Amino acid sequence: MKYIVEISYVYSLKYAGWQIQKNKLTYQQEIERVFSNVLKQNITVVASGRTDSGVSALKQVVHFEFDGELPKSFVGHVNNLLSEEISVLSVKTCNNDFHARFDAKSKTYKYFFYVNNVNIPFYDKFATQIKGNIDENILLKEVKSLVGTHDFTSFCASGNSVNDFTRTIYYANLEKVGNLWVFTVTGNGFLYNMVRIIMGTLIELAQGKLKYNMKEIINQKDRKFAGKTAPAKGLVLFNVEY
Amino acid sequence: MKYIVEISYVYSLKYAGWQIQKNKLTYQQEIERVFSNVLKQNITVVASGRTDSGVSALKQVVHFEFDGELPKSFVGHVNNLLSEEISVLSVKTCNNDFHARFDAKSKTYKYFFYVNNVNIPFYDKFATQIKGNIDENILLKEVKSLVGTHDFTSFCASGNSVNDFTRTIYYANLEKVGNLWVFTVTGNGFLYNMVRIIMGTLIELAQGKLKYNMKEIINQKDRKFAGKTAPAKGLVLFNVEY
Repeated sequence: MKYIVEISYVYSLKYAGWQIQKNKLTYQQEIERVFSNVLKQNITVVASGRTDSGVSALKQVVHFEFDGELPKSFVGHVNNLLSEEISVLSVKTCNNDFHARFDAKSKTYKYFFYVNNVNIPFYDKFATQIKGNIDENILLKEVKSLVGTHDFTSFCASGNSVNDFTRTIYYANLEKVGNLWVFTVTGNGFLYNMVRIIMGTLIELAQGKLKYNMKEIINQKDRKFAGKTAPAKGLVLFNVEY
Repeated sequence: MKYIVEISYVYSLKYAGWQIQKNKLTYQQEIERVFSNVLKQNITVVASGRTDSGVSALKQVVHFEFDGELPKSFVGHVNNLLSEEISVLSVKTCNNDFHARFDAKSKTYKYFFYVNNVNIPFYDKFATQIKGNIDENILLKEVKSLVGTHDFTSFCASGNSVNDFTRTIYYANLEKVGNLWVFTVTGNGFLYNMVRIIMGTLIELAQGKLKYNMKEIINQKDRKFAGKTAPAKGLVLFNVEY
C-alpha cells in the first residue's frame, strides 16, 4: 500500500535540513526512524522536495510504501515518538502511482523579515532581521516582475544538476503586518535556493544596491546580477498543492 | 534627567514575567541590572504595565531617571550586555512629569492561536494550540461585543486590588492568516489577565461551551460566567500608545 503523509516541522539547530546526510540529523532521518520503528519495517519516505538547514515547513508532503494497513493509532503513536520539532498532521492511502515530488502541481513558500537596526527578539523566533533602510515602493513594484514563466538561471545557486531553469511563478506578493514583512510566492517548481535568492534580491533592490531591476536581472540569466542569498531562517514551506 | 525607553522582549522559560520578584529572573530585573551597570548608578525602570510569565512584548515602554546625560553609545552598549531575549529599541529624553504607566492612553495586545488537534511546531514558537472544532462565525460575531466602555469584572482574575472595573475597548478584531488566528485588542487599560480571559471566553463561545454570549457575560459582572484564562504563550504586548 502507498500512503501520503502531511508533515509539519520547525527549524532547529539540531537539524541539518530535510534530506538524509551522513553524520547529521535530518527531518527525513528522524521520520524514517520513527515510522520504521512503529511499523517494524524499513520505511523510506519521499518528499515533495528537500528543504535546507534552517528552513521550516508548515506543510511538507511525503509518500511511503508499506506492506500492510496502518494501525488506527498510527498518527498519535508516531507523534508521541517524534521529537517536538516534527508533527505528522495526517496520513491517508493514495494511488500506487502517486509521487509526492513529481505529482506536486505547485508549492507555496513564505519568507518573514523585518527591517530594524536593533534586533526584535519576538520576530527573531521566525523572521530575518534586515538592517538599514529599504524603499517600500521599490519592494512592492519589483515583486510583480516575478510572476510568469521565466528562465530563472539568475536565481539558482551553483552546485545544482538541473538542465532546465524555466519555472512558472503563479503568485508573488509582499505584505506588511505591523512592521513584519511577509513575502509569499507560489510556483510550479523552484530551483536550488531560488526563493532565498529572490528574497535577497528584492531586499537589495529596495536598498538601492543593485544595478539592474528585477526584470533585467531575470533577463541576464546569470547568478552574479542577483542579490545575496537571504538567510534560511525566515523561510517556510507553506503548502504543497496537488 | 528623565528618559523614555522602548523595549522589546520575547517570552522564555528563563523569565518569570516583567516585574521584579524574589528568587526569580524577570525582564525588569535584567534591564535594571544592565542599565545600572552601564550608567554606574542604581537605575529603577517604571513600565507601562507588567506582563505575565510567558508573555512577549513587541513594544514595552518604560521610563527611568538618571543624574546626567546618557553616553551616545548607550543603546548599542546595553544591547550587547542584555540577554538575547531582550532588546532596547530606542531611548529619548522626556518631560520630567512623564510617567510610562499613567500617561499611556491605550495599549494594543495581540493573541496568536491555531485550531488543530495535532500541534504545529512552527506555530508553537509563538502561538497557542486549540484542540477541537470552533465555529468561526461565532468567533467573528462575538468579538464585536467587546468594543465600548464596559464593566469588565467578568474578565478580571481574582487577586487584584482595583476598585474600578470599567475599561474602554477601542478596537477588537479577529483575522485568520492562513490557518493562524490573530486577535487584536486596543483599550485604555486592561485588568489582571483580562486579555487572556477574553481570549479563552471567545474560544469557548466558538466551541459552544458557554451558556451566555459575550454581551451577557459582560453584563453578569461575575468571573464565573466567562471562559478559562487562555495560556500566556500566544499573548504579545504589541504597542503602548501615548
